[in-house]
Amino acid sequence: MAKVGIVMGSDSDMPVMAKAADILDRLGVEYEMSIISAHREPDTFFEYAKSAEAKGWKVIIAGAGMAAHLPGMCAAIFPMPVIGIPMHTSSLGGRDSLYSIVQMPSGIPVATVAINGGANAGLLAAKILATSDDALLERLKAYSKELKEQVEAKDARLKEVGYKAY
Amino acid sequence: MAKVGIVMGSDSDMPVMAKAADILDRLGVEYEMSIISAHREPDTFFEYAKSAEAKGWKVIIAGAGMAAHLPGMCAAIFPMPVIGIPMHTSSLGGRDSLYSIVQMPSGIPVATVAINGGANAGLLAAKILATSDDALLERLKAYSKELKEQVEAKDARLKEVGYKAY
Amino acid sequence: MAKVGIVMGSDSDMPVMAKAADILDRLGVEYEMSIISAHREPDTFFEYAKSAEAKGWKVIIAGAGMAAHLPGMCAAIFPMPVIGIPMHTSSLGGRDSLYSIVQMPSGIPVATVAINGGANAGLLAAKILATSDDALLERLKAYSKELKEQVEAKDARLKEVGYKAY
Amino acid sequence: MAKVGIVMGSDSDMPVMAKAADILDRLGVEYEMSIISAHREPDTFFEYAKSAEAKGWKVIIAGAGMAAHLPGMCAAIFPMPVIGIPMHTSSLGGRDSLYSIVQMPSGIPVATVAINGGANAGLLAAKILATSDDALLERLKAYSKELKEQVEAKDARLKEVGYKAY
Amino acid sequence: MAKVGIVMGSDSDMPVMAKAADILDRLGVEYEMSIISAHREPDTFFEYAKSAEAKGWKVIIAGAGMAAHLPGMCAAIFPMPVIGIPMHTSSLGGRDSLYSIVQMPSGIPVATVAINGGANAGLLAAKILATSDDALLERLKAYSKELKEQVEAKDARLKEVGYKAY
Amino acid sequence: MAKVGIVMGSDSDMPVMAKAADILDRLGVEYEMSIISAHREPDTFFEYAKSAEAKGWKVIIAGAGMAAHLPGMCAAIFPMPVIGIPMHTSSLGGRDSLYSIVQMPSGIPVATVAINGGANAGLLAAKILATSDDALLERLKAYSKELKEQVEAKDARLKEVGYKAY
Amino acid sequence: MAKVGIVMGSDSDMPVMAKAADILDRLGVEYEMSIISAHREPDTFFEYAKSAEAKGWKVIIAGAGMAAHLPGMCAAIFPMPVIGIPMHTSSLGGRDSLYSIVQMPSGIPVATVAINGGANAGLLAAKILATSDDALLERLKAYSKELKEQVEAKDARLKEVGYKAY
Amino acid sequence: MAKVGIVMGSDSDMPVMAKAADILDRLGVEYEMSIISAHREPDTFFEYAKSAEAKGWKVIIAGAGMAAHLPGMCAAIFPMPVIGIPMHTSSLGGRDSLYSIVQMPSGIPVATVAINGGANAGLLAAKILATSDDALLERLKAYSKELKEQVEAKDARLKEVGYKAY
Repeated sequence: MAKVGIVMGSDSDMPVMAKAADILDRLGVEYEMSIISAHREPDTFFEYAKSAEAKGWKVIIAGAGMAAHLPGMCAAIFPMPVIGIPMHTSSLGGRDSLYSIVQMPSGIPVATVAINGGANAGLLAAKILATSDDALLERLKAYSKELKEQVEAKDARLKEVGYKAY
Repeated sequence: MAKVGIVMGSDSDMPVMAKAADILDRLGVEYEMSIISAHREPDTFFEYAKSAEAKGWKVIIAGAGMAAHLPGMCAAIFPMPVIGIPMHTSSLGGRDSLYSIVQMPSGIPVATVAINGGANAGLLAAKILATSDDALLERLKAYSKELKEQVEAKDARLKEVGYKAY
Repeated sequence: MAKVGIVMGSDSDMPVMAKAADILDRLGVEYEMSIISAHREPDTFFEYAKSAEAKGWKVIIAGAGMAAHLPGMCAAIFPMPVIGIPMHTSSLGGRDSLYSIVQMPSGIPVATVAINGGANAGLLAAKILATSDDALLERLKAYSKELKEQVEAKDARLKEVGYKAY
Repeated sequence: MAKVGIVMGSDSDMPVMAKAADILDRLGVEYEMSIISAHREPDTFFEYAKSAEAKGWKVIIAGAGMAAHLPGMCAAIFPMPVIGIPMHTSSLGGRDSLYSIVQMPSGIPVATVAINGGANAGLLAAKILATSDDALLERLKAYSKELKEQVEAKDARLKEVGYKAY
Repeated sequence: MAKVGIVMGSDSDMPVMAKAADILDRLGVEYEMSIISAHREPDTFFEYAKSAEAKGWKVIIAGAGMAAHLPGMCAAIFPMPVIGIPMHTSSLGGRDSLYSIVQMPSGIPVATVAINGGANAGLLAAKILATSDDALLERLKAYSKELKEQVEAKDARLKEVGYKAY
Repeated sequence: MAKVGIVMGSDSDMPVMAKAADILDRLGVEYEMSIISAHREPDTFFEYAKSAEAKGWKVIIAGAGMAAHLPGMCAAIFPMPVIGIPMHTSSLGGRDSLYSIVQMPSGIPVATVAINGGANAGLLAAKILATSDDALLERLKAYSKELKEQVEAKDARLKEVGYKAY
Repeated sequence: MAKVGIVMGSDSDMPVMAKAADILDRLGVEYEMSIISAHREPDTFFEYAKSAEAKGWKVIIAGAGMAAHLPGMCAAIFPMPVIGIPMHTSSLGGRDSLYSIVQMPSGIPVATVAINGGANAGLLAAKILATSDDALLERLKAYSKELKEQVEAKDARLKEVGYKAY
Repeated sequence: MAKVGIVMGSDSDMPVMAKAADILDRLGVEYEMSIISAHREPDTFFEYAKSAEAKGWKVIIAGAGMAAHLPGMCAAIFPMPVIGIPMHTSSLGGRDSLYSIVQMPSGIPVATVAINGGANAGLLAAKILATSDDALLERLKAYSKELKEQVEAKDARLKEVGYKAY
């Protein structure tokens, strides 16, 4: 049963949101992915956010760009953690998305990750669930170990071939 | 009967929003002013935005700060013009509010005025109504004339007393 | 008879301004489009802005980039709403255009939309006219419904094929 | 037994961090608060971050300003969620703190809240714990209801006394 | 006979503009100072800018804040150099004024000085006139020498009393 | 005899600086163009700046990027106007160049034009010389007239073919 | 004999520069402090920078604000390390100073510290000298130990009195 | 024996870090280059930074991007100079990296160079070592002379062929 909802306001955000899904797949966390615009279909959006708790979701990952209201409006309705992913934008580089997501007023937090930080959003959702799921916590530790080994392998290769041949 | 709704997310925005009301009073435009938080009371907010057209409103003026979602969410629901006022913020000077209001995605415009631009929001609402109200248009022209005369009086005083005594 | 003037300072702004015209065409709103530079031909510009009311225009949409003075100078002369479109710029991403348009002093509002927000400028002009035109208001609602259905179709496709095949 | 660690790099951050503690007190969540500098006492810091899981902590709230490394370094060591609070700074308004905390590389998320967002950090920690604690979830909902009632009371007062007397 | 026009859009800019006048007084350059708003009185402004050449002016110094159009519109009309002074602004620190003045499109330069750089605007006007006035050039050199001697005196005092007593 | 010195710190600035030279050629103003780095050859630079007045130069146009010190150091030595051109930079878009050139301390103005504003720098130099050269002033007015006619021709074409065929 | 030169362009920078001197006093490093303006007295500045090596200096600490050229011009002349301190500025918060100092072109590095980072500039100078001075290195380590103990004392006090009484 | 450690958090930083190595090769300074992530392998990183002094290193050059903690964490542990290179980033242009590196708190300086300033980091390391190595200082002076001659050659070519043929 899905424990995480992934939602984006536009399918142009898919390449970034897919990274969140990939990580959750990798860590064995079920999720449901949707395209819902808080601006273009506010009723659908409200229904979506209000029904999330009843569906058993524990976390929502919401990505949006420009005047990015989707994560904050999720957080206004869903009582558990909402993770916001600010999308890169061509004019302002994603500052507009970042400020629209992270600068939430007191009372309504959004757990914000880096601009285009899809993978980290997936990881953060897993870490939240791991606070009450030891098996998932172990899988997260294994994943971290893998990341570490990847860096070690790169350093070993650098030491072997030198930077000019790297 | 009120033709303009003025709404702010927090009463800390009152000094700026009051300037919009002052201008509308001055120009003889009726309005209704409310404090409603899209984040803290999303249901109330939805009801507010959905009922606006039936109440005969033609314009909504919405002010908000930081991750300012109120104007954009009004524009997602109300079919006529929404004017957004970005509030000055202590950390980012209002850039967060400005970007959260002006950078709306295609399909959902918010008519954005300057940071803390309460008076201009009131004027813009009046100008919108004046597109079908000749008497109001005349009052707007009289107001502009007054602004002009204020500058002329200052220049006359400068010419008279010199800049050191000004 | 045209009710909207669309004006740009340079034909390099055409791709963005064309989106405003496209929306107005779509919604059955007549307009007149011009290329006039407030900087290079100030006399022509003044004549243009002063004659707009007599021609029956109710709204002017003005786009400009960099030190973008065209929208603000229109608003200094034309007594009804002026909508400003800040153009993206290669060095500052459009911040220069945005600040030059949105940060108008008290008394002279410009209804500013997003950087390169041509379509939203057209929509905002239509919404302004719709405050006194019920048929146009219905066409605007139909347009919003279409936008909603587009998102629904995308979500349905995602649900059907999954994000990897999307 | 404490489930949340609250850590700041300098006691000048105390006014902001205290808001996180206040919220947790209010919601009945136990925590331990420390002053530890990742820069001035890296060994102490490492020991702190490494021992957190064994102490039964599920979340760490870390606040820091300027080149704010404390939250990210906690996230490099502690396997469950780390919440970062960027401190306002006098020169850059907190942009330096925000970027140093939110722009984490792939693999090491920090759940970032607004600049000086102490209360929201506390709330987010509670929301994370509430994913497996129904009683806490109910207390969070009660808290949200209170926030809503505060806004309603303000709106009622505005409706009663008018904006000039507000 | 005045060779320099000093113009500001609002008398709130007077403290900065007065520094330009002070320098010109000091260097024996005649000027005429005015308060004229390009936004509030466009006709007066046009007449002002168009008549400047016939009055024998060689340079205009224009100061403005926020969406600062005054210097650029002067430069669109007056054929000789226009010096622009961007005013500090409370929300954006003067970036809005600076971008609105310095980012002029090709064909219409404004000689921009620092934010609130009133004294430098006066000096630049004098330097421009000094390209054809040897006596003024000598006075400018004497002024520079004085500035140099002021720094030398400060360094001598530091060397004498030490930095703790300075 | 050259009346204008054009100097750049690196030949990568040539495409922008060439536009200044093109304008001066077009207006019949003689100039001398050099590549001199204030950072890499400070002695050569000092000699260059000190000898400029004796060579009969009335204006120096200096372009530089990043920590752009060349225009300001010219202005520290040469007693007549120095025009600064901030170069676009790949990381900061030219903000670094702009701030390093325009934010000069009191006493040492640099007449700053737009980022990459080579043509405007040339025009500004000509306008400065035109304060004492009526023939040049006439050529400048003719150039402005040409710019105006170019816009008029574009507008005429738009009116003729419509925006879709433009 | 002084091994470090401390130089500022204006005595308004003294409060920040004094912190560098305080640290060097504390660590037993001799220095000479001067007020020299690269802009107002370029000849004096050149002589200063050129004579520094012969006086036995190994490091120069230069502080400057706005279009801060002093550190970069020192680095153009003095062959050993130059440390730059960007001063806080009222309009741009010190971004202008920071960019003017840190964004040096290839070939001429300036070792830049934080905005208003006087103490760190002093420490960095001492660390540079400590690469060949073991006794100084020991004093630096003792200083770091002290900083660590200060944080430990604060944490102990917090643990003792609690955050409300802190 | 290596006197300089060069470390990067990710091999994507190699093109920039290689420039530091190239300069050190050119100047005859030995170094050791590593890929170590403070975030992905904090234990390895701590060991690396702690062992640096015993290996005889005098300087560490650390490059990192986004929330760039590597240079600052090196400086928290290694007692001699740490040079930080902020990497260009696609969303924020490297401002995130720059602020995360340069805005270090009092007590822990990082000698920061320009965004992507690999060559300058190498030069700065050499200049630091040259404070106690006269032969290296001579090689640095020879290198500066070469840079100067390169500019002179470019200027000579410009004078010969003119800017159009350049």
